[in-house]
Amino acid sequence: MKRVMSVEAQKAFEAQFGQQFVVSEAVREHHARDESAYDKFLPDAVVFAHNTEDVIAAVNICREYNLPLIPYGAGTSIEGHILPIYGGISLDLSEMNKVLSVDDQDFTVTVQPGVLRMQLNEEIKQTGLYFPIDPGANASIGGMVSTRASGTTAVKYGTMRENVLSLKVVTADGKLLKTSSRAAKSSAGYDLTRLFIGSEGTLGVVVEITLKVYPIPEEIIAAICSFPTLEDAVNCTVMVKQSGTNIGRVEFLDSHAIKAVNAYSHLSLKEQPTLFFEFHGSATGIQEQIELIKEFVHENNGSDFDWASKTEDRNRLWTARHNAYFASLQLRPNSRSITTDVCVPISKLAECVSETAKDLETISFPWTMLGHVGDSNFHVLMMIDPNSDSEREAAERLNHRLVQRAIALDGTCTGEHGIGIHKMDFLKEELGEDMIEMMRRVKHAFDPQNILNPGKVFSWEA
Amino acid sequence: MKRVMSVEAQKAFEAQFGQQFVVSEAVREHHARDESAYDKFLPDAVVFAHNTEDVIAAVNICREYNLPLIPYGAGTSIEGHILPIYGGISLDLSEMNKVLSVDDQDFTVTVQPGVLRMQLNEEIKQTGLYFPIDPGANASIGGMVSTRASGTTAVKYGTMRENVLSLKVVTADGKLLKTSSRAAKSSAGYDLTRLFIGSEGTLGVVVEITLKVYPIPEEIIAAICSFPTLEDAVNCTVMVKQSGTNIGRVEFLDSHAIKAVNAYSHLSLKEQPTLFFEFHGSATGIQEQIELIKEFVHENNGSDFDWASKTEDRNRLWTARHNAYFASLQLRPNSRSITTDVCVPISKLAECVSETAKDLETISFPWTMLGHVGDSNFHVLMMIDPNSDSEREAAERLNHRLVQRAIALDGTCTGEHGIGIHKMDFLKEELGEDMIEMMRRVKHAFDPQNILNPGKVFSWEA
Repeated sequence: MKRVMSVEAQKAFEAQFGQQFVVSEAVREHHARDESAYDKFLPDAVVFAHNTEDVIAAVNICREYNLPLIPYGAGTSIEGHILPIYGGISLDLSEMNKVLSVDDQDFTVTVQPGVLRMQLNEEIKQTGLYFPIDPGANASIGGMVSTRASGTTAVKYGTMRENVLSLKVVTADGKLLKTSSRAAKSSAGYDLTRLFIGSEGTLGVVVEITLKVYPIPEEIIAAICSFPTLEDAVNCTVMVKQSGTNIGRVEFLDSHAIKAVNAYSHLSLKEQPTLFFEFHGSATGIQEQIELIKEFVHENNGSDFDWASKTEDRNRLWTARHNAYFASLQLRPNSRSITTDVCVPISKLAECVSETAKDLETISFPWTMLGHVGDSNFHVLMMIDPNSDSEREAAERLNHRLVQRAIALDGTCTGEHGIGIHKMDFLKEELGEDMIEMMRRVKHAFDPQNILNPGKVFSWEA
Repeated sequence: MKRVMSVEAQKAFEAQFGQQFVVSEAVREHHARDESAYDKFLPDAVVFAHNTEDVIAAVNICREYNLPLIPYGAGTSIEGHILPIYGGISLDLSEMNKVLSVDDQDFTVTVQPGVLRMQLNEEIKQTGLYFPIDPGANASIGGMVSTRASGTTAVKYGTMRENVLSLKVVTADGKLLKTSSRAAKSSAGYDLTRLFIGSEGTLGVVVEITLKVYPIPEEIIAAICSFPTLEDAVNCTVMVKQSGTNIGRVEFLDSHAIKAVNAYSHLSLKEQPTLFFEFHGSATGIQEQIELIKEFVHENNGSDFDWASKTEDRNRLWTARHNAYFASLQLRPNSRSITTDVCVPISKLAECVSETAKDLETISFPWTMLGHVGDSNFHVLMMIDPNSDSEREAAERLNHRLVQRAIALDGTCTGEHGIGIHKMDFLKEELGEDMIEMMRRVKHAFDPQNILNPGKVFSWEA
């Protein structure tokens, strides 16, 4: 239910925050949508937090005046996570963007939530360490925590679930929690760290994150190769995965995605189903991996490897891969993408991809297919005219069929993007009403007034 | 508060369970203690569950008659986790011991909670897969889930936190939840899988577990080497860890532990601080690792490697390591061990171990020190006379000092054993009352009558 900011609430914010409290239309507009295909929902105001005390103060005022508070990082979510659907305050954390400490003995860093992924790697580069988790977008670390993000390197390094050691979180009561020590493992009570990871801002506001980081690999070599059919490319990935090879990345792009990438990034890749590989390790370790993977490529009718061992070539290739989202949107000017995100057990990947490709033959608008196939997680981007109800419905129908297919294969409706408002029904289909009820109990226990990002993930009432 | 089983409750159990409901003294005695130094607490009765329906029925009767229900697996916990301190029903899951499915394409297995660790590996051996997580004891998988166990291989494979894909859990309401799909990753709502892992039977009864398994490594080579001082051994480990080498195991035993192991397992290892290494991988991969680690050993005054590449030699060595707990107890007949379990950031390990060794010089009873130093987690076993209050107090005092030291170093009071009843005060010291309060809210929301393993982890009331 929409809750309107009262004059008293506005006065309280102004008194507390001065210039950091903004009600201008332009700033509210900027916080009104994410990368999803949803229309705008304007917040009543935006608060720019500079530190943890600001976050506590904002939560306390929202609680006192019963106003929604929606944490905002970089705005790169794609399921409507940050939309103020019931109004309230968009709490902009982008100015809490300091790397607070780097521990090059323990391979950990502690950062504020507004630190961007690329900024973090830039700032710690000179220590020889890096943070590999890479969802493509230059997301904020706080946002990545909140959606349990992963991306192209999860096949080797895992997701945010495995790479967050500890959090500081402001609760709906305005208390500051530290969820765990900096020890590599612990059996100290309930795993609230993991409970906050992926809770999409509905259980608390993350104000500090301690992450694992890794030594920059001795060598990194990238290679791409193309396949005559989609099935060949997928089957090759399945073999790579089932061999237990500890590969750095293995990404799939279908011929539509390659076409989009070629146009957007001025490349001339062969417009066929393609795998992007990246090998991380020592020279001999990498050589062993490459020999093995060449066999799998050969068995599945793949082309010879096209190599990139020089950093600039590799960066060009991966930049192109990262821009696939924007490249896809460019296939159709003024379109928005409805993006699927299923993840299935690897033995079901080929079936899931093939059936989906058949479905896609029926639609009238441009689409691309790509994904983190090493994790058996792939995306279909459907570029719809946001003003066309029939296109939106056709895309949603296909998305729903794909989700049902993934669930039937013991997979999930979302490998990494999260639920937001877009997948609330899918979550119910996947996990059932009893599981939602347990999540709801946690939400009610942590946020009894429902002020933290209300209306997301599942409904407040059964 | 002790809650006594009424005649009506007993009748309800008898009607439901017949022979599976047992009130004999001997069987209750068998469920009255774990491997900790606590005295017995007899349950009112024991129910032997054969399937999920039995678990649901037992939970429902306990809820109706307001009786505690304590899930019981193999009885190998060491912090009093399974003690029926308020009476009630010990729910014995040891007969739910089937491996339900093995998926050798996806590298997953699904098991019942009473399956023992060694049984699982025996049963899946012929598939070429294995479950590496190894806490030493031949624990049940359900128990390992409940304490978030880890052990000697966590340095390479992670803990139960990283290796459980999905759970089926019976809630205090008697509902059966499936917590997630079998996909390798997911962002589908709150991470209840991780919330149940490590909750020590206080939030639900785990009735089915889907685990990751791994291809048995191409080669496994074990080696041990001894060091003139404890500090040298620890510093060597720190170097190994900080090199980023992906080693299979690296275990530390102090000279007391080696002495105990020699006596118990009829070995003649040099009675000095010793590291046990295990290397997993391809022949060339292992060779690379060994060359690197030899340098670290040399730099820290270690002896030459003593090798075990034959399976039987390796098993003999690791069996000796696994029996270190029992070997330590044999240092003093009729003793019980008070066992510490701190884990600190690796950069603090040397400091933490050295200070602890100094403390240990002051105590009058036998002790050993050993641990999973690759994770910076080590144990002190103090063999007390369970009838001596002064010894118990001295051991607890030392434990408390060690926990405070670990917490001051941003570590945890428990790397892998859990809280049980023994570390409830330590948990409060580590995480603070506000964190406990959030855990308590979860407990109250999931189990409003406090029937599931009451009195463990934290107090029901603030």
